[in-house]
Amino acid sequence: MEEDIIHRIFASSPEDDDFLPKTVEDIFNDFTGRRSGFIRAFTTDAARFYSLCDPEIMNLCVYAHPNGTWEVNSPVEVLPPNLPQPVLGINFAIDGMQFHDWLSFVAVHSDCWLLSISSFFSANARLTRHDRNRLFDLINNLTTLSEVVTIHHAIQTLFQVMTRSAYYRR
Amino acid sequence: MEEDIIHRIFASSPEDDDFLPKTVEDIFNDFTGRRSGFIRAFTTDAARFYSLCDPEIMNLCVYAHPNGTWEVNSPVEVLPPNLPQPVLGINFAIDGMQFHDWLSFVAVHSDCWLLSISSFFSANARLTRHDRNRLFDLINNLTTLSEVVTIHHAIQTLFQVMTRSAYYRR
Repeated sequence: MEEDIIHRIFASSPEDDDFLPKTVEDIFNDFTGRRSGFIRAFTTDAARFYSLCDPEIMNLCVYAHPNGTWEVNSPVEVLPPNLPQPVLGINFAIDGMQFHDWLSFVAVHSDCWLLSISSFFSANARLTRHDRNRLFDLINNLTTLSEVVTIHHAIQTLFQVMTRSAYYRR
Repeated sequence: MEEDIIHRIFASSPEDDDFLPKTVEDIFNDFTGRRSGFIRAFTTDAARFYSLCDPEIMNLCVYAHPNGTWEVNSPVEVLPPNLPQPVLGINFAIDGMQFHDWLSFVAVHSDCWLLSISSFFSANARLTRHDRNRLFDLINNLTTLSEVVTIHHAIQTLFQVMTRSAYYRR
């Protein structure tokens, strides 16, 4: 089955990962690389990320790659895909949601996707129960993307309030 | 955001869950309920499950519910869905794969989906790092669906070999 999975990942994934992580450390590195990409998309690159999610275009997904980059792209065309896929149609949710709520929504689903990917690699590597526990302990000790978005929003709001109050004190 | 999520889950999920689990124990119960459904689908109900996945029909998913039941159904129509969705088009994979490989493929993705769902509920319940660790320790101490399928297949093969050798000894 393993060869078939590898073949299909390259056939259906928009990524060009050149290896499948096989150890707890490699899977965790893959996780943290993709997580960095998402953090960039949801904080410093948030305006560009938002502008790419045009609700007029067909359904879009946000992908993050192990090298810390991110991209908004169409879902894979080959069904079933091999790698678990991120949530479909994030651009349709823009209509009718506040910017911060939309970002939180995408962040929650991206957290789910990151765990899915790690679970997929962990099954492919046939990790033992002990190793799975170790991997998910490492993962769960990190701040989730959903928490990062909330903290970033709180800091931005605080900054705005402080700037405004400094303006009024002039 | 929470009310919006609740509204959209009921609008877009094929399930009629009447509550969103909020504690480690409730999320774990949801996980084990759905897991039982999948185990049934991939072992005792495997022949029926296979027969429902007609490659001639449009793309299908397999869902398992917290009450331990399972169903093969079309994906949700509203995009983006709120609950993470299972892998799309499992029926298309039947062509060109051995039965056991196909079942392993679906089991790996169902493991990923179960983790996604728990991650979604854990974000919705705003679980702390400590609680997330506790939840995923409970989850990772269970045999994965992928392991269940492998063990079940090994037992079935052994049974067939024993039956055959008993036949030749007559």
